[in-house]
Amino acid sequence: MRKMTKIDIITRPGKLEELKEAMYAIGVTGMTVSQVFGCGLQKGHTEVYRGQEYAINLLPKIKIEIVVCEVPVEAVLEAAKKACRTGKIGDGKIFVYPIENAIRIRTGEEGDIAIMDPEDVEK
Amino acid sequence: MRKMTKIDIITRPGKLEELKEAMYAIGVTGMTVSQVFGCGLQKGHTEVYRGQEYAINLLPKIKIEIVVCEVPVEAVLEAAKKACRTGKIGDGKIFVYPIENAIRIRTGEEGDIAIMDPEDVEK
Amino acid sequence: MRKMTKIDIITRPGKLEELKEAMYAIGVTGMTVSQVFGCGLQKGHTEVYRGQEYAINLLPKIKIEIVVCEVPVEAVLEAAKKACRTGKIGDGKIFVYPIENAIRIRTGEEGDIAIMDPEDVEK
Ligand SMILES: Nc1ncnc2c1ncn2[C@@H]1O[C@H](COP(=O)(O)OP(=O)(O)OP(=O)(O)O)[C@@H](O)[C@H]1O
Ligand SMILES: Nc1ncnc2c1ncn2[C@@H]1O[C@H](COP(=O)(O)OP(=O)(O)OP(=O)(O)O)[C@@H](O)[C@H]1O
Ligand SMILES: Nc1ncnc2c1ncn2[C@@H]1O[C@H](COP(=O)(O)OP(=O)(O)OP(=O)(O)O)[C@@H](O)[C@H]1O
Ligand SMILES: [Mg+2]
Ligand SMILES: [Mg+2]
Ligand SMILES: [Mg+2]
Repeated sequence: MRKMTKIDIITRPGKLEELKEAMYAIGVTGMTVSQVFGCGLQKGHTEVYRGQEYAINLLPKIKIEIVVCEVPVEAVLEAAKKACRTGKIGDGKIFVYPIENAIRIRTGEEGDIAIMDPEDVEK
Repeated sequence: MRKMTKIDIITRPGKLEELKEAMYAIGVTGMTVSQVFGCGLQKGHTEVYRGQEYAINLLPKIKIEIVVCEVPVEAVLEAAKKACRTGKIGDGKIFVYPIENAIRIRTGEEGDIAIMDPEDVEK
Repeated sequence: MRKMTKIDIITRPGKLEELKEAMYAIGVTGMTVSQVFGCGLQKGHTEVYRGQEYAINLLPKIKIEIVVCEVPVEAVLEAAKKACRTGKIGDGKIFVYPIENAIRIRTGEEGDIAIMDPEDVEK
């Protein structure tokens, strides 16, 4: 089975649309989005959200989970950095994890095929 | 320490009850449920939710996280596929991850024992 | 690249503040918090939430995700157990996962540096 990887992107809620388009442009076939609260401690720094300043922040963020196999991890990282970077504190973090298997429930297919577009699988 | 595994099931919100019962039936002792939004891009296909059609969908899904050790991963996959499959687009995906350790906070127990029913551990 | 680890803590919502302070005290620089529902099956036991008793429970919990590199995993586990333990059923679980990489979106930095306080990185 080819190596699969999960990428978690934690960024500003306002970046979802741009990120989604950037991911589809490089061939990502799906993603899972959650609303989370992010905490970052930075000595002497604060983050601004809707005009208010926070020191030990607990700010609304989105977490986007993306599993890839054919699309290179490096391509996801580059596209995500490009879509989410403003250069200001609060742009967020990306975490990369190993994954052992993927299954498409509808068909029972396992491995890389489970996360490929069914149109391409059938071809 | 015996190998532990995390299984993420992303499926239709309406399947939670059935899935929960299927998991308990095979000996799973706990699960963590989140409300998420799922995005799947399928060329030429659409998914229907509450009578509306979506192309690049961002649909309400549930994510169920299950950590197992004694219960075989294969048993979880089979039971989850059975509980969640309707045969229609939108049935969802399952992802399988390695895990290094588990801790029961109440007692400090680590490893497989942390996710066993305390009744069985004490016996 | 030094080994990085993700720690998921699933515990009572009321423990967030205490946990946050405990984590910052040992040098953790960030965390991601989600609202989840926890299911735990315990033969013959029930968990109490707001005066009500639940058998097969589906109770509000919080999930805290913490990625560390410099701070030892063992220190996080000890501090989390201390902050979250009441000794009663419902204290929760901790799960430990391997992680392959971390990226700071603002600067593009990768690895352990991505999760260090920028103040310390610049020094
Ligand atoms: N060590 C960590 N473990 C888990 N989640 C983290 C960690 N560090 C940061 N996060 C998550 O990422 C979000 C963004 O992190 P943080 O605020 O530290 O970065 P930033 O301000 O965007 O970046 P910068 O370091 O450039 O200021 C946090 O709100 C939190 O949700
Ligand atoms: N590559 C992926 N990475 C992360 N999450 C994904 C990925 N693919 C799918 N998902 C998640 O799983 C959910 C279901 O995926 P998708 O809609 O592609 O499958 P489906 O329509 O159920 O299956 P099918 O391929 O049979 O049409 C998505 O809404 C999304 O939350
Ligand atoms: N095997 C598991 N997989 C995934 N999540 C789990 C698992 N076991 C427990 N959890 C999560 O952890 C939460 C707490 O678990 P549980 O209720 O079993 O523990 P507890 O009652 O705190 O501990 P104890 O075993 O001491 O009674 C659950 O509500 C659920 O969210
Ligand atoms: Mg910050
Ligand atoms: Mg689909
Ligand atoms: Mg319990």
